[in-house]
Amino acid sequence: MTAFPFTAIVGQDEMKTAMVLTAVDPGIGGVLVFGDRGTGKSTAVRALSALLPPLEMVAGCPVNSARAEDVPDWADVPSPQVIQAPTPVVDLPLGVTEDRVTGALDIERALTRGEKAFEPGLLARANRGYLYIDEINLLEDHIVDLLLDVAQSGENVVEREGLSIRHPARFVLVGSGNPEEGELRPQLLDRFGLSVEVASPQTIEDRVAVIRRRDAFDRDRAAFLASCSVEEADLRDRIVAGRQRLATTESSDAALRDCAALCIALGSDGLRGELTLLRAARALAAFEGDGEVTRDHLRRVAPMALRHRLRRDPLDEAGSSTRVVRTVEDVLA
Amino acid sequence: MTAFPFTAIVGQDEMKTAMVLTAVDPGIGGVLVFGDRGTGKSTAVRALSALLPPLEMVAGCPVNSARAEDVPDWADVPSPQVIQAPTPVVDLPLGVTEDRVTGALDIERALTRGEKAFEPGLLARANRGYLYIDEINLLEDHIVDLLLDVAQSGENVVEREGLSIRHPARFVLVGSGNPEEGELRPQLLDRFGLSVEVASPQTIEDRVAVIRRRDAFDRDRAAFLASCSVEEADLRDRIVAGRQRLATTESSDAALRDCAALCIALGSDGLRGELTLLRAARALAAFEGDGEVTRDHLRRVAPMALRHRLRRDPLDEAGSSTRVVRTVEDVLA
Amino acid sequence: MTAFPFTAIVGQDEMKTAMVLTAVDPGIGGVLVFGDRGTGKSTAVRALSALLPPLEMVAGCPVNSARAEDVPDWADVPSPQVIQAPTPVVDLPLGVTEDRVTGALDIERALTRGEKAFEPGLLARANRGYLYIDEINLLEDHIVDLLLDVAQSGENVVEREGLSIRHPARFVLVGSGNPEEGELRPQLLDRFGLSVEVASPQTIEDRVAVIRRRDAFDRDRAAFLASCSVEEADLRDRIVAGRQRLATTESSDAALRDCAALCIALGSDGLRGELTLLRAARALAAFEGDGEVTRDHLRRVAPMALRHRLRRDPLDEAGSSTRVVRTVEDVLA
Amino acid sequence: MTAFPFTAIVGQDEMKTAMVLTAVDPGIGGVLVFGDRGTGKSTAVRALSALLPPLEMVAGCPVNSARAEDVPDWADVPSPQVIQAPTPVVDLPLGVTEDRVTGALDIERALTRGEKAFEPGLLARANRGYLYIDEINLLEDHIVDLLLDVAQSGENVVEREGLSIRHPARFVLVGSGNPEEGELRPQLLDRFGLSVEVASPQTIEDRVAVIRRRDAFDRDRAAFLASCSVEEADLRDRIVAGRQRLATTESSDAALRDCAALCIALGSDGLRGELTLLRAARALAAFEGDGEVTRDHLRRVAPMALRHRLRRDPLDEAGSSTRVVRTVEDVLA
Amino acid sequence: MTAFPFTAIVGQDEMKTAMVLTAVDPGIGGVLVFGDRGTGKSTAVRALSALLPPLEMVAGCPVNSARAEDVPDWADVPSPQVIQAPTPVVDLPLGVTEDRVTGALDIERALTRGEKAFEPGLLARANRGYLYIDEINLLEDHIVDLLLDVAQSGENVVEREGLSIRHPARFVLVGSGNPEEGELRPQLLDRFGLSVEVASPQTIEDRVAVIRRRDAFDRDRAAFLASCSVEEADLRDRIVAGRQRLATTESSDAALRDCAALCIALGSDGLRGELTLLRAARALAAFEGDGEVTRDHLRRVAPMALRHRLRRDPLDEAGSSTRVVRTVEDVLA
Amino acid sequence: MTAFPFTAIVGQDEMKTAMVLTAVDPGIGGVLVFGDRGTGKSTAVRALSALLPPLEMVAGCPVNSARAEDVPDWADVPSPQVIQAPTPVVDLPLGVTEDRVTGALDIERALTRGEKAFEPGLLARANRGYLYIDEINLLEDHIVDLLLDVAQSGENVVEREGLSIRHPARFVLVGSGNPEEGELRPQLLDRFGLSVEVASPQTIEDRVAVIRRRDAFDRDRAAFLASCSVEEADLRDRIVAGRQRLATTESSDAALRDCAALCIALGSDGLRGELTLLRAARALAAFEGDGEVTRDHLRRVAPMALRHRLRRDPLDEAGSSTRVVRTVEDVLA
Repeated sequence: MTAFPFTAIVGQDEMKTAMVLTAVDPGIGGVLVFGDRGTGKSTAVRALSALLPPLEMVAGCPVNSARAEDVPDWADVPSPQVIQAPTPVVDLPLGVTEDRVTGALDIERALTRGEKAFEPGLLARANRGYLYIDEINLLEDHIVDLLLDVAQSGENVVEREGLSIRHPARFVLVGSGNPEEGELRPQLLDRFGLSVEVASPQTIEDRVAVIRRRDAFDRDRAAFLASCSVEEADLRDRIVAGRQRLATTESSDAALRDCAALCIALGSDGLRGELTLLRAARALAAFEGDGEVTRDHLRRVAPMALRHRLRRDPLDEAGSSTRVVRTVEDVLA
Repeated sequence: MTAFPFTAIVGQDEMKTAMVLTAVDPGIGGVLVFGDRGTGKSTAVRALSALLPPLEMVAGCPVNSARAEDVPDWADVPSPQVIQAPTPVVDLPLGVTEDRVTGALDIERALTRGEKAFEPGLLARANRGYLYIDEINLLEDHIVDLLLDVAQSGENVVEREGLSIRHPARFVLVGSGNPEEGELRPQLLDRFGLSVEVASPQTIEDRVAVIRRRDAFDRDRAAFLASCSVEEADLRDRIVAGRQRLATTESSDAALRDCAALCIALGSDGLRGELTLLRAARALAAFEGDGEVTRDHLRRVAPMALRHRLRRDPLDEAGSSTRVVRTVEDVLA
Repeated sequence: MTAFPFTAIVGQDEMKTAMVLTAVDPGIGGVLVFGDRGTGKSTAVRALSALLPPLEMVAGCPVNSARAEDVPDWADVPSPQVIQAPTPVVDLPLGVTEDRVTGALDIERALTRGEKAFEPGLLARANRGYLYIDEINLLEDHIVDLLLDVAQSGENVVEREGLSIRHPARFVLVGSGNPEEGELRPQLLDRFGLSVEVASPQTIEDRVAVIRRRDAFDRDRAAFLASCSVEEADLRDRIVAGRQRLATTESSDAALRDCAALCIALGSDGLRGELTLLRAARALAAFEGDGEVTRDHLRRVAPMALRHRLRRDPLDEAGSSTRVVRTVEDVLA
Repeated sequence: MTAFPFTAIVGQDEMKTAMVLTAVDPGIGGVLVFGDRGTGKSTAVRALSALLPPLEMVAGCPVNSARAEDVPDWADVPSPQVIQAPTPVVDLPLGVTEDRVTGALDIERALTRGEKAFEPGLLARANRGYLYIDEINLLEDHIVDLLLDVAQSGENVVEREGLSIRHPARFVLVGSGNPEEGELRPQLLDRFGLSVEVASPQTIEDRVAVIRRRDAFDRDRAAFLASCSVEEADLRDRIVAGRQRLATTESSDAALRDCAALCIALGSDGLRGELTLLRAARALAAFEGDGEVTRDHLRRVAPMALRHRLRRDPLDEAGSSTRVVRTVEDVLA
Repeated sequence: MTAFPFTAIVGQDEMKTAMVLTAVDPGIGGVLVFGDRGTGKSTAVRALSALLPPLEMVAGCPVNSARAEDVPDWADVPSPQVIQAPTPVVDLPLGVTEDRVTGALDIERALTRGEKAFEPGLLARANRGYLYIDEINLLEDHIVDLLLDVAQSGENVVEREGLSIRHPARFVLVGSGNPEEGELRPQLLDRFGLSVEVASPQTIEDRVAVIRRRDAFDRDRAAFLASCSVEEADLRDRIVAGRQRLATTESSDAALRDCAALCIALGSDGLRGELTLLRAARALAAFEGDGEVTRDHLRRVAPMALRHRLRRDPLDEAGSSTRVVRTVEDVLA
Repeated sequence: MTAFPFTAIVGQDEMKTAMVLTAVDPGIGGVLVFGDRGTGKSTAVRALSALLPPLEMVAGCPVNSARAEDVPDWADVPSPQVIQAPTPVVDLPLGVTEDRVTGALDIERALTRGEKAFEPGLLARANRGYLYIDEINLLEDHIVDLLLDVAQSGENVVEREGLSIRHPARFVLVGSGNPEEGELRPQLLDRFGLSVEVASPQTIEDRVAVIRRRDAFDRDRAAFLASCSVEEADLRDRIVAGRQRLATTESSDAALRDCAALCIALGSDGLRGELTLLRAARALAAFEGDGEVTRDHLRRVAPMALRHRLRRDPLDEAGSSTRVVRTVEDVLA
């Protein structure tokens, strides 16, 4: 199905920034998108897939390997050829079973040829791309746990039905959720890199703009896409440039101290907070063509990197976002 | 089984209008019909199927494709021929299993020929038609979720038993429910396009009329159907005409602003409210042969498009319908 | 096992009338028999089966078709012959599984011949007869729902294990229950046509009569049956005559107004109340050889047609039966 | 394992009487034996089996048929021969599965010969004998229900795995239970014919007698059995004589009135109370060689026939046994 | 794994006595060992196995039969030979499934040869020996029930998967439990013959002795075993002698009266208390070479034979052991 | 995936010591690592694996046997050859099934060759090495129990699916847990040898150090590893030397008395406390090249050996660690 263009989304700047940052540095970790029903969470994620630059990969390789020598030995790719292909974006359908996520015994080959072969799953197909879960609150904890575990280690380990397989599974996990439908465990929240909040626009002008664009898109998709193609191509180019600059973008000791000071002030558990803050700020600097991480970069990414790692503070009724912003102002004054 | 004729239903005008609108523009989304037991909810839905105009489709195509080139490659249709066929109306029987909804591995071919073939399910059979669920409250949430997901994306994605299939599944989901038997989650409600409420007639005259028609129908179905055939054909023709006019029916910026203003005043979450309101009003205009959406159209469809998207307001004891009507009067005064 | 004769049951007139009415017009719908343990609920239902007149049916047809051309194409009846056979009475045994109710894949043919054939279930076998459920309270709701659904539509739709079958399944559902063992949901109650209450006789004379007949039956069944054969044949003849008169028994507009007025006064939801009341009164008129439905007929069947459709009234402590009788006296005064 | 002899049991007269009565007239229905742990409930039941007179039955017949023409057609008995065999006593082992109770598809024949044959279960094996359940409280309700249903109808109806079988299953159900371990539902209690209570002996002399006999039995079973063989044979002969007299033992109208009056006075639901009381009294009369049921017989069996059918009376703290005895004294004064 | 020697256990005299008594007379029934974590419960049970004298048994017989004619007909032992073999001690591993306990269909033979053969389970393997369950509290009640049932009847009855098998299964059931981890039902407690309590030693000297022996054993097992071999052989010889004297050890009427008086005074339910007390006292007399059971023997075994059969006494806060000792002093004064 | 080097971990000295001690003497038992999310628990355990010295083992042996004669007879190793291989470190993946832990029937060989062969599981693969469980709180108790049972006995006993296998399974179990996510049962805690607590560093300097090392490692793993290789090799050599000294490191009676006195003073249940304390102190002495266990060694390992064996003391609010330290000061003053 044709996706609504990323650049035609009205407002929602924080969400768009978070997605661009993970496109520049997938090592930042997954993104959680929280918001009420009907705020376009799914639309945005599906839009991202149309925007991403193509990758080199071996045609037919079940794990999208970049080079012929990386094709796993359990895969059946007789004469591997490297082609240009879109960045994989895998959608976790509702009711997916664990065997389709991790891969499992290939029943057909077991039955017809009596062989114990591996049938790769969605984790294989998502390698080097994105894995999207709509309404992550509705997924069982053990599957979310498994996905985060694989996303972090970059490797899928399968020990079932007599199989013992491991293959690369590096992807950005994107989850959308509705805070009204139940919360994720803090343990799971902490393992996402970034989190953003979206809301319906509140002015008549914005709402009319959204309706007009959506109605135009629904009535004639091809014409609407054509009208956005220049902006889409421009953003894609900037992402590619950001990726190339990433390795040479520096982070001073002062920046590291700022990260640590912020996290201590916020009382965030563990060290994932500062590590993510640093990577997200560096990705932003690279995307904007700056050679070094500055306090301005840290300030802009701190809410999305830290707000989901705060403990509830019973004496402070402010929301997580407000507490992060206030602390950033104090510490990075 | 012969259905009771749509045009012989006594009263229930809002329900009949909602069904006609989805027949004119299936993109409006599903319809929820709420009412006490015995108010003829099922009768109405089953009546709709006898009314709908025929479609062109490839004989034997499991997804009712309109053209030979759209038959999916997993389907076995050796020499496709386009025929006229009734609009498919698929009934979700009680106790249906998920594999029959989405389709699944064809066990017979797996056992006898050792092949991993796809056996399409009810979602395939409902493509381009209607899918009806009686007592939707009794269905498990995860199946309702799956049905709404497919209805919205227009595509059925199957990832199970080693299969990886996607096929078109565009249909109008019609669900009937009894508010006394438990509610649907707000998240699910919001994903239906329209909702209507039905009730038993309250005058002796109306009730006698219902009993007389029903008893006449039960005693001699053929004679009763013959007595209604002209009205049935007339309504069918008006639906076809409405469909043809849909693409040229305009909606002014003022109409868009009215939609947004109404939804802000009602405090409905997200933007599905205004999008559905606009499409339903446009379908009504097209059905009635008007060239443009007017405030009158908006006023008439607002209750069915918005009443199921309101948050509970603890300070306002009026029902949802009353609140929508009152707000329409204020905003579109 | 030889059944105790219907006409030898002491007292329990309302229950016996209800059963006779469904024998005259099976379209009235099912019968619910409520009463304490040991009041002979099961005995009465099993007695009915011995009383019913024989039917013409195709020998070997799994759905008891009346004519060779009605044998379903999935059935294997090489040279169909029409015979006289007893009215089928199917007993739902405890612990029955859903696949045996609806029918399912024939495992033997699947395993030995690799064919996907349909093995019909109890719903097929009950076609054109009775289906009896002892202690319906103990059956799971979803099975009761399924049985009522099929009883009402007259058709069994099977969508499972790759099968897609529909066959006629017209039967009268008879359920017995003990109000002390938990209630049926109102939604289910409403879908039964009639309901009756039974109780142990309270005089020594009646109880001695029951014990004497039962003891005589237990000690010498053949002799006891012989002593009742004339009365059994007489009742059977009257049922057959009633069936023949049914089509020509009239119901005036006044009778329809009486039905509607009664149901409005009782506040019964929906319209199933008046439709059942009308059919039951007409069946009674036909059974008694009257040409038209009168107020007397309505008065006599109103309790069994309406008592299970009343809402609880917290201000009225009278039982349902009392409330129906009182309202009948007011409205049909 | 050799059973402890029935006649060597110290005390426990009511339990022994109840068992003898069901041996004389199996139609009385099952027996419930209640008592604390260690009171010899299991011992008594196992002892009964050694006492029962032999039956004529077809060798190899799975349902113990008395005559060659009664062997079911699904059974594989090529040349049936009638032999003398012990009364079957089937023990329901802990953890028995429903398929072994009712019988089920013969997996071996299904796998090796591709046939859908019936493998009979414990209900078949118990036909014409006894079925014993130790700690009936621990069995699931649905199995107890099924056993009582079959015991009452005398027929096992199997509808599962594509099988549709019925075969005779007439047996006396004997259950032992510990009132401290949870109660049976009243609905189930009522379907047992008799109930008895057992307790440990309370005098040193009785207890020493029990220990001495048990220790003697444990140390040399053969010698102990020999010492009881005359008493065992004598009791066996009296049971056989009782059976032969049963058909000619009369019950006057006065006796029937006594039964009804007793049950009305006790307020027992339904009519199973008086029917069982009459049969048990008649069996006692036959066993003792009396030609007619007298008040003395009724008095002696009333507690075991009625105590488990009483409703809790919150104003009467006396136990069920006391209430029955007191009422018997009043009514049969 | 080499076991720690029984005679090297420091203290824990009651537990060691109980185990020796069941070795002399396995008919006493099972032993329950209660104690906190880390008190060496498992060590003691595993130690017992190394101590027991060898048995004569048929090589390869699945139920350890003593004579060729006792090998069951379902077993495949072509040329049976009697050998000397260690007493079987079977360990119930955690996570054992019921089919492995009772035995089940031999899947391999079913699949490869199409035969319905019996694959014996742990109950077969434990015949004539010991069955040990560590942390019996953690086992499901129905398995414990099954084990006690078989231990008591001496026979394993299998009714499952179309099998109908019975074979001898005489063994001593030894269970260890931690009273902090939940209690066994009284019904289960009563079916164990003896119960003992163990605790950690409380003096530094004893604890140092335990650590030193254990550390010596862990560092050089062979040397440690050698240092205990004389004491092990001596105890083994005394057990064998006790067994031979058992049949000729007498119990006077006075001893039986003492048993009964003790149990009445303690209010223990049922008669298992006195029977076990008598057998345990006789086993002790036989082990110690006394010709007759005396009050001294009764006094010494009363706590382990009776403490787990007492009802909670809300007016007596003393533990069960204290109550038994106190009553023994009163009654056998 | 390349592991972060063990010696590059900032702080966390107690955890590092505990791991080194189990490397010197695996008989100490498992290690529990408790700490908040993000404190590097997993990092440390994965780091350990890169540090451990290689072992001699038979190539292809499923249980990593050191010598050809130790290869189990169910394993298929035609010509065994001894090689040098890394110490096995097996990771228990989330969602692992019990059959993959213990090993199970080899389905492929069963299906294709009709043989009942054993497919070894993770316990086999972990033999002579480490088994790591991340978030042990999330694992089901019965699996933890099973792992501890095998870890303690050193043997995996499989009784399932007709298999009866035992093989060596000696490994150190390492579990990490988050005390906020629920506690382990005391029974399980006691079966771990050592427990340590980890926390995030609290100074900016330490946190910056962690971020800098981690960021350097993430950006160029090869360079970072090279920078730590000397320290890694040095620690590895010291572990090997400690192992060799272990057998000759002595423990005086005074040390044993100290162990016992400490445990009595702390009131720890059972004797596992003193045994573990002694072994851990001896391993520390061996690692540090001391010939004998001293009070200093005991003092240093007492917290990690004892803190998880204390009962809650409602009168003492100090944490377990504080209580151990205080008691050590008193007793070993």
